[in-house]
Amino acid sequence: MLTTALALAGPVLAADDGKVTNFLLNNGMEVVVIPDHRAPIVTHMVWYKIGSADEPPGKSGIAHFFEHLMFKATTNHAAGEFDRAISAIGGSNNAFTSYDYTAFHETVAPSALGEMMSFEADRMRNLILTDEVIKTERDVILEERRSRIDSSPQAVLDEEVDATLWQNQPYRIPVIGWMQEMEKLNRIDAIAFYDKYYRPNNAVLIVAGDVEPDMVKALAEKTYGKIERGPDLPPRIRPVEPEQNTKRTVTLADARVSVPSFSTQWVVPSYRTARPGEAEALDLLAEILGGGNRSRLYQQLVVKQGIAGEAGAWFQGTMLDATNFTVYGSPRGDAKLSDVEAAVDAEIARIAKDGVTPDELEKAKDRYVRSVIFARDKQDDMANMYGSTLATGGNVKDIEEWPDRIRKVTADEVKAVAVRYLVLDHSTTGYLLPQQQAGN
Amino acid sequence: MLTTALALAGPVLAADDGKVTNFLLNNGMEVVVIPDHRAPIVTHMVWYKIGSADEPPGKSGIAHFFEHLMFKATTNHAAGEFDRAISAIGGSNNAFTSYDYTAFHETVAPSALGEMMSFEADRMRNLILTDEVIKTERDVILEERRSRIDSSPQAVLDEEVDATLWQNQPYRIPVIGWMQEMEKLNRIDAIAFYDKYYRPNNAVLIVAGDVEPDMVKALAEKTYGKIERGPDLPPRIRPVEPEQNTKRTVTLADARVSVPSFSTQWVVPSYRTARPGEAEALDLLAEILGGGNRSRLYQQLVVKQGIAGEAGAWFQGTMLDATNFTVYGSPRGDAKLSDVEAAVDAEIARIAKDGVTPDELEKAKDRYVRSVIFARDKQDDMANMYGSTLATGGNVKDIEEWPDRIRKVTADEVKAVAVRYLVLDHSTTGYLLPQQQAGN
Repeated sequence: MLTTALALAGPVLAADDGKVTNFLLNNGMEVVVIPDHRAPIVTHMVWYKIGSADEPPGKSGIAHFFEHLMFKATTNHAAGEFDRAISAIGGSNNAFTSYDYTAFHETVAPSALGEMMSFEADRMRNLILTDEVIKTERDVILEERRSRIDSSPQAVLDEEVDATLWQNQPYRIPVIGWMQEMEKLNRIDAIAFYDKYYRPNNAVLIVAGDVEPDMVKALAEKTYGKIERGPDLPPRIRPVEPEQNTKRTVTLADARVSVPSFSTQWVVPSYRTARPGEAEALDLLAEILGGGNRSRLYQQLVVKQGIAGEAGAWFQGTMLDATNFTVYGSPRGDAKLSDVEAAVDAEIARIAKDGVTPDELEKAKDRYVRSVIFARDKQDDMANMYGSTLATGGNVKDIEEWPDRIRKVTADEVKAVAVRYLVLDHSTTGYLLPQQQAGN
Repeated sequence: MLTTALALAGPVLAADDGKVTNFLLNNGMEVVVIPDHRAPIVTHMVWYKIGSADEPPGKSGIAHFFEHLMFKATTNHAAGEFDRAISAIGGSNNAFTSYDYTAFHETVAPSALGEMMSFEADRMRNLILTDEVIKTERDVILEERRSRIDSSPQAVLDEEVDATLWQNQPYRIPVIGWMQEMEKLNRIDAIAFYDKYYRPNNAVLIVAGDVEPDMVKALAEKTYGKIERGPDLPPRIRPVEPEQNTKRTVTLADARVSVPSFSTQWVVPSYRTARPGEAEALDLLAEILGGGNRSRLYQQLVVKQGIAGEAGAWFQGTMLDATNFTVYGSPRGDAKLSDVEAAVDAEIARIAKDGVTPDELEKAKDRYVRSVIFARDKQDDMANMYGSTLATGGNVKDIEEWPDRIRKVTADEVKAVAVRYLVLDHSTTGYLLPQQQAGN
């Protein structure tokens, strides 16, 4: 149920068969309706603008805790009743938590939309948070941490790499929480958090599918619209990262690792914090450098030199605060990890020195915009795109104009962000090694 | 005016010529009187139990900011008047800020003690914090950061090493603050901080010198005793560090560096957080491993092998939360930094494997206790010892019993803390390199 980073490359245009509509309910809840009439289904999502990076000091894990608590009993429904109602009509549902938001979604037949809204609106304010509920569900998240993080060398390493990359900004704290803090989460913490953040004026409703805006609006007003507005929340101003002046490494050697790997990260601006055009240029840099089988890293290291089993790059643009740009690789055959790392560094240096070609840039734009447009085929990906953008300070216009902004990026701008941000002496690298390589 | 760590090895017995007295004023202010009649002087200190590790998120530097603001005008005295009064009678004064406390002290003739108390009590509650005062003094601390940190490669490295060692506990934040947060400190922040923490029930008065407890008590009641008690403060429970599972490095290469150096740190318990005897064993481990010219590191690396210009170890025991144990070294002649690091690691491994000898332990105890007893000769060192202990959760009894507790430590206990805490795969190392070694 936990996602630490939404696996989408970026925002996209709406489906062709209807204009995206957005409006506010009287209590401040934002609503986005994305008509998509290809199939008789609807995706209903509520995004709360509260994520792990908003947690009070010492209370890590409480945002994700609510991803679980929201499935417990309310004053109107027993625990599990919502799930059973969805199963009974052949629908599906889930929830996820990230640094910047927590979201709940259901995919059902359009006729069930009103019922979904009724259930979802109910649990926004009517959870029964007893000591017993807290204790039971806390055991569940502790076990989730043990199985997902503590038993995985890669996950343990990733956690400490994040906390080494981010020295002040709260993205250094794991979304699932630090064990010693999760163990102490209690009913008083939970009620304070729920009353502060689970309010219509801190939520975004996304409805995508075989629906019309008027109908969605009428249903939303009948359900969510009846909930009283909560107190105004202060702006989401969090501690920001100081400039990095050092090269940092984090190394974990473990007997369960067979193939070594590395990843190097830099702090870079997100769509929300970047100067105009920089985030778009970073998206294209990631695509050209390491976005797939046509990328420079893949072609050079995997295909041509044959030294890497995998090599790539990615940029996580949809974040409220400054974000990270990552390159990674692992060796194949007789190649050493240090060979792969040196070859990745050489490709970065080549872009920083010579830039990218106009042809390469055009193809990357085509590929990138197209891959994102393909996301339209999946209704929930489209809903995710709107939800994550709106929950991190963007708006519908940002999404609609995004392909044009990508089209406008020049080769010089791509080179400029490589020079500006991908400085090896100011990077953070994680190494995952087999046990016998420890200390090498 | 800034100290990030008190340069004392640990607590000590009181001077021989009088029993240490401690009591509370009615408003909750703690008082410790340490008679010392060797010379007609008195050291007067007020310790506030507020340090950089208590700062609200995003407000780094505000504790240290008060070290400056406290010298500005009050409703009763112009800015500089306190300083001039001290100079006029040939006294001296200063202030310092650490992670756990902020302290102000004056050394004067005993006849001036009442006047010192009157000034000090006045500025506890009567500062005039205007936008103009904030702006002027903020420029001073920003300049202090530029000159002390940003222009020193060692200081820049140390800051990022600290933030890499500490991934959750607030000791990762520099005492002076992050530049981008210092720039935004304002009058509203300052007034909130002052009203919360600059209160008699959050302060410890230490008076050491040619005084008698009854006289100190009478003066304290007439000055500090008139200040109204502030609201009760919550316990100082801060985010704690998760277990470290990785080996971390932080590297800075700079043209201004001529001799390379390294330091390796571990998170270890402090006197306040340790199990009985462990902090004492860590103090002795630091002494035997690298506490001075008789230590193993010095004898092996500097004297015998001749590869190091310096090599040593230290343990910072007087902290409110978990603290750090550090080893360090730099090469000499043709030796390489990696040779020195390997030799330091070998000495640690030797203690972890074979322990320390009974003779070596006894000599270290003698040396250590004696060096600390020598501190009695400096009145202000003695006052510092009481102040720092009381401001980090200890009491007068802890200080008085400390030499006995050191005496009880066994060789097995010293070996046990080396094995338990000094694990190289779970350490954090900083490297300061000349520019040409960058990337090596």
